[in-house]
Amino acid sequence: MTPILITDPDHIAVQPFRDIKERDLTGREGLFIAEGEVVLNVLLSPASLCEPEAILIAEKRWETLRPLLEQAPHDVPVYLASQEVLNRIAGFDLHRGILAIGRKPEMMSLDLMLDRLGAKPDERRILVVASGIGNHDNMGGIFRNAAAFGAAGVILDAGCCDPFYRKAIRVSVGAVLRTPIVREPTSGEIVTRLQANGYEVLALTPSAQMQLADYRPSPRTAILLGSEGPGLPQAVIDQCLPVGIRMAGGFDSLNVAVTSGIALHQMAFG
Amino acid sequence: MTPILITDPDHIAVQPFRDIKERDLTGREGLFIAEGEVVLNVLLSPASLCEPEAILIAEKRWETLRPLLEQAPHDVPVYLASQEVLNRIAGFDLHRGILAIGRKPEMMSLDLMLDRLGAKPDERRILVVASGIGNHDNMGGIFRNAAAFGAAGVILDAGCCDPFYRKAIRVSVGAVLRTPIVREPTSGEIVTRLQANGYEVLALTPSAQMQLADYRPSPRTAILLGSEGPGLPQAVIDQCLPVGIRMAGGFDSLNVAVTSGIALHQMAFG
Repeated sequence: MTPILITDPDHIAVQPFRDIKERDLTGREGLFIAEGEVVLNVLLSPASLCEPEAILIAEKRWETLRPLLEQAPHDVPVYLASQEVLNRIAGFDLHRGILAIGRKPEMMSLDLMLDRLGAKPDERRILVVASGIGNHDNMGGIFRNAAAFGAAGVILDAGCCDPFYRKAIRVSVGAVLRTPIVREPTSGEIVTRLQANGYEVLALTPSAQMQLADYRPSPRTAILLGSEGPGLPQAVIDQCLPVGIRMAGGFDSLNVAVTSGIALHQMAFG
Repeated sequence: MTPILITDPDHIAVQPFRDIKERDLTGREGLFIAEGEVVLNVLLSPASLCEPEAILIAEKRWETLRPLLEQAPHDVPVYLASQEVLNRIAGFDLHRGILAIGRKPEMMSLDLMLDRLGAKPDERRILVVASGIGNHDNMGGIFRNAAAFGAAGVILDAGCCDPFYRKAIRVSVGAVLRTPIVREPTSGEIVTRLQANGYEVLALTPSAQMQLADYRPSPRTAILLGSEGPGLPQAVIDQCLPVGIRMAGGFDSLNVAVTSGIALHQMAFG
């Protein structure tokens, strides 16, 4: 792999890296931006479900990154630029000096995901269902925890933001790129299909009678997480086994990513 | 309480609210900025350990906030301003429309905190020790979890950022304002003093043999958290009981605020 030096920020080859912040908001037709060494490491690892398409790094980082970059497929161009040119391409001060364009995996249907999982009936298996999670930090945190505790996949309803948004990928420390993801319109329908496939679906909600610490997971468990403000719709909670996280009096408030970490730890090893 | 309408952003009364973002970086001699309704609610609640000094809100929020503002002490001025004047005072677009100046509690020594806690010897008690936590999001998250799971206090070493930084307070949903806080120079000395007072100190570290899920807490427990990058110094880990959080293979990575949530949940109810 021979890197290509870019001296002109308007060079046609680096157009996909232009004005990252503005374009974060518009989507990229199956592509995404990865930034930083941790995420690039995941993108180039065998565990990644995504394909790298191009890599752009600051010249000064070339020598230290070379061993990592040599893991990239041969047809992935690596561009080098001075910090100044890099900043002008990206449209902001890119301290980390590492960007990549990746291609999202083809969207799987929930049925296909469940079929594939179903091929190994003896394993204990955890899925995460996110409903209406619109905050990219929380989305990234949920994926990070899903990967840390070995969840087999994440299922998003239509109210969720895109986990391939740059910040969500970064907060997930790359977990978004190696986790099977499914999108289905409504959490109600997701719950129905999971239950039909033998999953016990836990709705994490402060209103629950049963406490997480008392719950003993079944071999196939899915945990359903709602956003912090509105929470989960009551009709969906009613479909599930509602489970709460016991807290100290007077301050019943957990961040949803923290909630996912506590619940997944309990499912996996509690 | 009669609100005072401010039409001139240079009015002397609102100088403490000027250019918030720049001044976040410089400290405020015992004062801090609180923003948003959730945090203001805590600041004005009986649980707060901090005193409100002044409140500045957008005119349009006056009617809905009135019942809350009537809980403020009578000598705390409430200023109203149009959104435009408010933005000019704050130096940025203040959508939330709610700011307050608060006074930090007097700094307690660790000995005094432990003395006060020692007065109730039969209660189960959890403390959090933070070492080198420099990220305000993580600091806020740790405080939020400490409050959620009833930790009696948070002890910071010299490597920690200020939890009264605006963003840390916001992320903590106000928990920073109602949690006893102590600062001591080194985590090594903090551990020594806690142990001398009968606390079992757990060092949360991936290198540990013992897993959190297998640990049964003693009546007085402290959990020691280090930053994600460098982690805890080995010499400090050696003073403590090292405990790890078991994870799936190949992705051993948890955010430190999530770690605090999982550990505190386990201490409190595991």
